[in-house]
Amino acid sequence: MNLSLTELRGAYAENKVTPREVMAIVAERCEQYRDHNIWIHQLTASELEPYLQRLETSSADALPLYGIPFAIKDNIDLAGVPTTAACDAFAYTPERSAFVVQRLIDAGAIPVGKTNLDQFATGLVGTRSPWGACKNSFDPSMISGGSSAGSAVSVALGMASFSLGTDTAGSGRVPACFNNLVGVKPSIGLLSASGMLPACRSLDCITIFALQCDDANAILAIAEGEDASDAYSRSNPFANSPRHYGQWQGPLRIGVLPAEQLSFFGHEAYAQCYQRSLAAIAASGVELVEVDFAPFIEAARLLYEGPWVAERYIATSPLIQKRPEALLDVTRTIILAGERGSAVEAFRAQYRLKSLRKAATKVLESVDCLLSPTAGRPYAIDEVNSDPITLNSNLGYYTNYMNLFDLAGVAVPTGFTENGFPFGLTLVGEAFTDRRLLSVANYLQQLFKLPLGKDQSDYQALSTAPIKNQQRIAVAVCGAHLQGQPLNWQLTERGAYLVSKTLSTPNYQLYALAGGPPFRPGMVIASQGQGCAIEVEVWSVPASEFGSFVAGIPAPLGIGKVSLQDGSVVSGFICEASGLAGAEDISHFGGWRKYLAAK
Amino acid sequence: MNLSLTELRGAYAENKVTPREVMAIVAERCEQYRDHNIWIHQLTASELEPYLQRLETSSADALPLYGIPFAIKDNIDLAGVPTTAACDAFAYTPERSAFVVQRLIDAGAIPVGKTNLDQFATGLVGTRSPWGACKNSFDPSMISGGSSAGSAVSVALGMASFSLGTDTAGSGRVPACFNNLVGVKPSIGLLSASGMLPACRSLDCITIFALQCDDANAILAIAEGEDASDAYSRSNPFANSPRHYGQWQGPLRIGVLPAEQLSFFGHEAYAQCYQRSLAAIAASGVELVEVDFAPFIEAARLLYEGPWVAERYIATSPLIQKRPEALLDVTRTIILAGERGSAVEAFRAQYRLKSLRKAATKVLESVDCLLSPTAGRPYAIDEVNSDPITLNSNLGYYTNYMNLFDLAGVAVPTGFTENGFPFGLTLVGEAFTDRRLLSVANYLQQLFKLPLGKDQSDYQALSTAPIKNQQRIAVAVCGAHLQGQPLNWQLTERGAYLVSKTLSTPNYQLYALAGGPPFRPGMVIASQGQGCAIEVEVWSVPASEFGSFVAGIPAPLGIGKVSLQDGSVVSGFICEASGLAGAEDISHFGGWRKYLAAK
Repeated sequence: MNLSLTELRGAYAENKVTPREVMAIVAERCEQYRDHNIWIHQLTASELEPYLQRLETSSADALPLYGIPFAIKDNIDLAGVPTTAACDAFAYTPERSAFVVQRLIDAGAIPVGKTNLDQFATGLVGTRSPWGACKNSFDPSMISGGSSAGSAVSVALGMASFSLGTDTAGSGRVPACFNNLVGVKPSIGLLSASGMLPACRSLDCITIFALQCDDANAILAIAEGEDASDAYSRSNPFANSPRHYGQWQGPLRIGVLPAEQLSFFGHEAYAQCYQRSLAAIAASGVELVEVDFAPFIEAARLLYEGPWVAERYIATSPLIQKRPEALLDVTRTIILAGERGSAVEAFRAQYRLKSLRKAATKVLESVDCLLSPTAGRPYAIDEVNSDPITLNSNLGYYTNYMNLFDLAGVAVPTGFTENGFPFGLTLVGEAFTDRRLLSVANYLQQLFKLPLGKDQSDYQALSTAPIKNQQRIAVAVCGAHLQGQPLNWQLTERGAYLVSKTLSTPNYQLYALAGGPPFRPGMVIASQGQGCAIEVEVWSVPASEFGSFVAGIPAPLGIGKVSLQDGSVVSGFICEASGLAGAEDISHFGGWRKYLAAK
Repeated sequence: MNLSLTELRGAYAENKVTPREVMAIVAERCEQYRDHNIWIHQLTASELEPYLQRLETSSADALPLYGIPFAIKDNIDLAGVPTTAACDAFAYTPERSAFVVQRLIDAGAIPVGKTNLDQFATGLVGTRSPWGACKNSFDPSMISGGSSAGSAVSVALGMASFSLGTDTAGSGRVPACFNNLVGVKPSIGLLSASGMLPACRSLDCITIFALQCDDANAILAIAEGEDASDAYSRSNPFANSPRHYGQWQGPLRIGVLPAEQLSFFGHEAYAQCYQRSLAAIAASGVELVEVDFAPFIEAARLLYEGPWVAERYIATSPLIQKRPEALLDVTRTIILAGERGSAVEAFRAQYRLKSLRKAATKVLESVDCLLSPTAGRPYAIDEVNSDPITLNSNLGYYTNYMNLFDLAGVAVPTGFTENGFPFGLTLVGEAFTDRRLLSVANYLQQLFKLPLGKDQSDYQALSTAPIKNQQRIAVAVCGAHLQGQPLNWQLTERGAYLVSKTLSTPNYQLYALAGGPPFRPGMVIASQGQGCAIEVEVWSVPASEFGSFVAGIPAPLGIGKVSLQDGSVVSGFICEASGLAGAEDISHFGGWRKYLAAK
């Protein structure tokens, strides 16, 4: 049985299965993959019982995540179960679940257990754990990727419908790539971090692993929300919801790395996967443009070489001060470096970051989103064990910059190597473009139609076309808002600019309305076969400013749609029929300016 | 002659005076007030000549700041003139003017000179300078306030129409208060800091001193603009322009400090000025509500006690390392502390700041803006000399938090003590509310009608009513956007919520339009004396999201104004007359839901 949300919700709706039966299947699979080192704590039957009993007094309709099993990375709190961060000496048992975990449980989801991770979420490998290296779902000799290792593998192998990871440097994306999953690294603060053990508190996010984008989207909608108890939590400005789709014409325009900035660290199969993926995307009609990734790559280096490791030191204090031997050697070595930095260095790094961010903004403004390999290559567990620091750094080449730049990212599978190992790409956009990125990722899933997870099921598309970046709205004006006319400032003060002076289709009438000043015309569609073309100006207004512009227009005018002579239809002034009382038909002038000149 | 922009522009327009004559008057006044220690470098006749000659080949109409004299704080570059930051050993002569200075010169403004300041902009007193303590324009025994000391005094005493200061902890506001000026501390990055010597680079702003708000507004419009060469520069999102005015009803609502959080440091006259100002503002119809300033006050302390002084250390390096004796004792003592902090402390302070900011956001969301004394009290120069650190700290009680919180502020005069010493208030809002704050400050100037600067002229109002904070728009829906109807998600995905279910005025007709799905009604105003009340829902939509909602509505519908039975008029669906072809009049059902139910 495949545990995708769609599948499982359907099964519950048709009473084909109960949550208790689903959890029995999950338990079997956990047993089957015991030696993958996925779980730090799997919920016992008695720990599961309250969740199951609650669902038995509810119905599948009433709860959006009714009976959906999910896994929780063991640096996120689940009430009554220890949080270890893969360090026994650090463990504590929280009384309350993390804000996001509680939301999911309230929605009907069932926690399966707490998953293995690189100790203190410090690593991208999934091997740095006293609970053993977490094994890859496709090839147990390979790394799972980390630090959210068990969270990814549990979903890929069908032990959970989705899981929560965390991501500071790439921990929510790299394991998605290596396990054929969608990995959503939301905008910082979109999911509250309350009840998550920090790695770098100013950069951390809780992330979502899922089999497909529609599932991730549904989980995100339930999990997101501002939380007064998390200082880094932010409310979603709702600036990226699907409405943007279809406003502007033209293909999706995605930025990619120039060849010389790509690195696959000697892994030919991944290089080929990447080229094949890009070719297929371009062939589908997406415009791929090379952009300069240099500022991203430099910022990525800053994360490890800069002062942010001080945050890891803070997060592991006082343990690392009192009992440093309680940490793994590799973890301790990395984190202890955080004690040494100075505030002067911290601010200098911040200045450099700010400058790189400015360059990155320019790049992001030029495209709908960016796209890169999620990871340059996978490694065998043995390889990582013999060179734990350098190989780990290589894994962050395409990921480390993202939270420093306050961006959103979605990792999505796009192919397999000849040996059947998964490969994927990451889509990148400004903070709060999460849903837009998910819509593009979904487009890629529809394009590649890969099987989901490790043999979980075939891909089944649900949602619609990708959302383009659309931050401006074209509006046709025909009267007091024309350039030089008395209300034109209402456009210019909003950062609007003139796009074109043109004509409407030849089926409009123009009236000089009664009243004023300001004197205003009304433009209405004439009866069949009548009317004429009216002079209009098309202005481009920032989408965020257009609403207040519309709200400021008094009756009988309003904003509807106006047809232009070039065949396009844009937002523009319309007039209620009731407002034509006492108005003079001035259509024969062909436009407001000409009428004013004649008057 | 009064040098306000209004006055001077008028005089130029009528050819009553030439720039050369104005600069001669300015030179006389500089001589008259020589012992105030205003200037570090006053431009010589030969240095002025190129500016004057350029204007003589131009016309007053062609340049918005034609012949307007302005002063520049001596930590901002003017090409060809040394920048000292009040430290001779640090001085350098820039080849290019600062970005903002160049914009002003390009617009026709004439630099008078470089003004005295607290060394390295470290201080709020105006006494920490080898060029001597800058004397107050109203009482030479009193401090001018700092660090932008000479910039403020030069405008108050009529040597410049406006001036540039800088502000990290209050340097653009405290001197405005003590010299009866408007002081604009813009949002960080609104004015480029390129060519400004940093104090704390992550917090610094260039500021504007002017006699009145209209002048400040005009200067701001010319000086602002994103600058690719300044990593901290930001583009104005245009979210606070005057359009917001008049959308929501009700009085202006301003947050003030509860009595126990106020401090006048024993200065009874300022305490009285404050109470008188507040009483007058309340009597004018503004709603004053007490809000908790505790997070602001704690953040203010963080600035001096936290890691940000490391930024001052960076800004004065390498001089402070190689020749620490080149700095004044007090400046060196303060700045050297910046060498010692750790990155761990820096991040801990950042976490605390983030948490305080979250509390501050709540406060700011509850009002149109905040209002506090600009400074708790003035001091005599002798007093400060005998206790330079503590008294300086007292001056920052109401100001230090502002840049740490990324807020905008406008200081505005609101009265005089019985001895004739000026007193003022500061208005505070979120980043990029600059223009809204200026509109409220202007309202206060209109209310108090104080003389401008030190005996410069009477106040003359130009602009209009204050702008209210208005971030949501009410929209009446009557069809497919009603709760539970097929297009309702277009509202909810934008963060809209239902405000009320109500009726229109009883003069509408409702039509079921041809076509669909989705099936849609059209609501139109009936002929005189006909029609009926139609059921509508009023939804509250974030203003930034309303534009895309409108843009997504297909013809023949659009958004205009709808009258409700309670007498209010809100944004709402209207319908073009041409769209009624084939439509069925369903008015007698009284609403779309009832029609659907009957159908």
